[in-house]
Amino acid sequence: MELDKIKRLKNAYLKLSSSTLKERNEALLRIAEDLVDAKEDIFTENGKDVEEAKKNIGEAVIKRLKFDEAKLKSSIDGIKDVVKLPDPIGKTLEKRELDDSFILERKSFPIGVICMIFEARPDALIQIVSLCLKSGNAVVLKGGKEAKRSNRAIFETIKNALDKTSLGSDFIYLIESHEEVSEILKLDKYIDLVIPRGSNSFVRYVMDNTRIPVLGHADGICSIYVDESADLNMAVRVCLDSKTQYSAACNAVETILVNKKIAKEFLPLLKKAFDESKVVIHASDDVLSIIDAERADEADFNKEFLGFECALKIVDDVKSAIEHINSHGSHHTDAIITKSEENKNLFFSLVDSADVFANCSTRFADGYRFGLGAEVGISTSKIHARGPVGLSGLMSYKWLLSGNGEIVKDYADGLKSFHHKDLV
Amino acid sequence: MELDKIKRLKNAYLKLSSSTLKERNEALLRIAEDLVDAKEDIFTENGKDVEEAKKNIGEAVIKRLKFDEAKLKSSIDGIKDVVKLPDPIGKTLEKRELDDSFILERKSFPIGVICMIFEARPDALIQIVSLCLKSGNAVVLKGGKEAKRSNRAIFETIKNALDKTSLGSDFIYLIESHEEVSEILKLDKYIDLVIPRGSNSFVRYVMDNTRIPVLGHADGICSIYVDESADLNMAVRVCLDSKTQYSAACNAVETILVNKKIAKEFLPLLKKAFDESKVVIHASDDVLSIIDAERADEADFNKEFLGFECALKIVDDVKSAIEHINSHGSHHTDAIITKSEENKNLFFSLVDSADVFANCSTRFADGYRFGLGAEVGISTSKIHARGPVGLSGLMSYKWLLSGNGEIVKDYADGLKSFHHKDLV
Repeated sequence: MELDKIKRLKNAYLKLSSSTLKERNEALLRIAEDLVDAKEDIFTENGKDVEEAKKNIGEAVIKRLKFDEAKLKSSIDGIKDVVKLPDPIGKTLEKRELDDSFILERKSFPIGVICMIFEARPDALIQIVSLCLKSGNAVVLKGGKEAKRSNRAIFETIKNALDKTSLGSDFIYLIESHEEVSEILKLDKYIDLVIPRGSNSFVRYVMDNTRIPVLGHADGICSIYVDESADLNMAVRVCLDSKTQYSAACNAVETILVNKKIAKEFLPLLKKAFDESKVVIHASDDVLSIIDAERADEADFNKEFLGFECALKIVDDVKSAIEHINSHGSHHTDAIITKSEENKNLFFSLVDSADVFANCSTRFADGYRFGLGAEVGISTSKIHARGPVGLSGLMSYKWLLSGNGEIVKDYADGLKSFHHKDLV
Repeated sequence: MELDKIKRLKNAYLKLSSSTLKERNEALLRIAEDLVDAKEDIFTENGKDVEEAKKNIGEAVIKRLKFDEAKLKSSIDGIKDVVKLPDPIGKTLEKRELDDSFILERKSFPIGVICMIFEARPDALIQIVSLCLKSGNAVVLKGGKEAKRSNRAIFETIKNALDKTSLGSDFIYLIESHEEVSEILKLDKYIDLVIPRGSNSFVRYVMDNTRIPVLGHADGICSIYVDESADLNMAVRVCLDSKTQYSAACNAVETILVNKKIAKEFLPLLKKAFDESKVVIHASDDVLSIIDAERADEADFNKEFLGFECALKIVDDVKSAIEHINSHGSHHTDAIITKSEENKNLFFSLVDSADVFANCSTRFADGYRFGLGAEVGISTSKIHARGPVGLSGLMSYKWLLSGNGEIVKDYADGLKSFHHKDLV
């Protein structure tokens, strides 16, 4: 790793952040064009990655790793979508006259230097660079090792494209080894934010090994509570979708809590649907007296199964459900199925999670579905950004104050006084 | 420290956050009344603190430590100001129809459990509890050790007042020893945010010894750049105010950078004003050929003097000034004195600090002066909140999604599609 280049990212971001929207959009389009021109080389390198990966890893990873015409097209479309986004830099968030002609403005400004660590998906690199370019952030990129050749080919193409523009390419930097990640995590003086994607254990490792703020989430232990007043068919449908629509996702449901008053009626319905979809149920003893299932141990209620399995438990009422969720969940996404407005409101106000849903699938917890545009990540922290994070998660702000020689002494001595008139 | 009580703060904050504005405001007024009723006891305890402090510490600290009728009155006025603030909880920040009758809302919600560590100022405890109560946050309080008896008396009064209300007092917890601070900093599972105030070395210690997010700033190395086009009398006045109006503050100026084209004319004016106010100048060699001053070493340009001293240097132009500030400053507050709109804009866009000012004193960097109401702290981080932080710095948000049985499969299969209509 070239520490000099990492240090220079701070300056590069300042230069980038003071560029015009036109310059940034032109650079994005230049990248799109050059990626198309270089596609054969990129496909060749990607082919080598795929060949090698086939020896070691499963079909799902290969599918994500493969970069072909279709993936290229959707990447190019993605770049064009980012071009269409309004300029996130320099938006006036507050404007206030402190005194006559003494104007304070709070303006959006990039965070600075972001380190993005992402899975073995070459299209992710393109998307991340696009978002950082648009938002004026410098970026250290580290993709999954299986995509090493593809990432290098794509990175070099982007770098050469940028070098042909007024912006230059100093604001992007690719690292390739796991050792470099450990080094990067020590550079809290030069990196402002780390966004790690990948396995829970990897995200946890990042969180535990850096003083740089981390945006992300380790676990995704999401729950659904089926209330006594639930529409039971709706409950079955929502539970099934939340578990099976994409079971490896962080927003898939892991724990289902059923109100005791409807357990006898609901559990057989759920069991039938889950059996048909081959979902294994790990259930507490009281459930087992109603339906057949695996016997759950306590650990099953703190587990992200990441597959066609779930934990199932009977609870007394909405309050016990909330208590269970707050103490066993990961504060990511939790849902209630109910017809009671009162129980829904209680659930909304007392469940301590980023996303709290009523009568719909937990799988809706996603930046695109939320209408945020491209998703940067999902955060379970309450600081900075919570839940699905769009482009705005890459922005900070600055306070700009323009005066005419004002000094504090005049205000402290009572010669002048603030009138604090909001202008925006 | 009773770990059980700390753990219970999470539930206490959820209960508090679901209380009504009326309940919280009534509790605030109850606290105000009871503080007045208990004033003789509090003054007595404060008197003991002051007596003991007189043996060890200086006049400035004693002045802040003293809690008398005047301080009580301004504390009560402060509580009444907080009562008047609009409810920060449950504000709709975004509202979007994802599809027909499928409504997403982003609503403001307290961060959770805040640990506030503050200087030996008994009135600070009252202000912090008021802000946390209003914003629905639970709080662990640790005041300066010199104010131990005062804080205990005030805390007990507040606790008893709260116990008479529907809210109870479970959401506040007082710790008294430095050892307890070290223990608290380990509790990242139970504390959501630490806000340390106090000496640079203490804040640095907190930042270096916890995985809990920290809101604050260690150093306050603020600079003023006097541009070639500056009004020189204005520059002298602003430099003097920035240095002397309250030299121990984090927003006092420490480094003054002077454009070489005006150095010969400006430096004698500055020297005269600083001599009259007994400000010691540590200057680089090129300055010393124009005026008499102490010879600066490199360390003086990375120093927060916290007194009537400053570092002084000649620079080539606005760009060199920006470069110096970004590499030597602490990204807190920096100002330019200039008549050039172009240089001001360059300074505003390239200085990487929370507060960037033109033609006014750096001492304006303050929540009250900015019109934010009560100030929670000043942050030099770019994550969550930057610069002076008001009540909004204690707030996070939740995403609430209300549906009618929607499942992701229908959208993934193209049976339904999002229309993402913004309602707010």
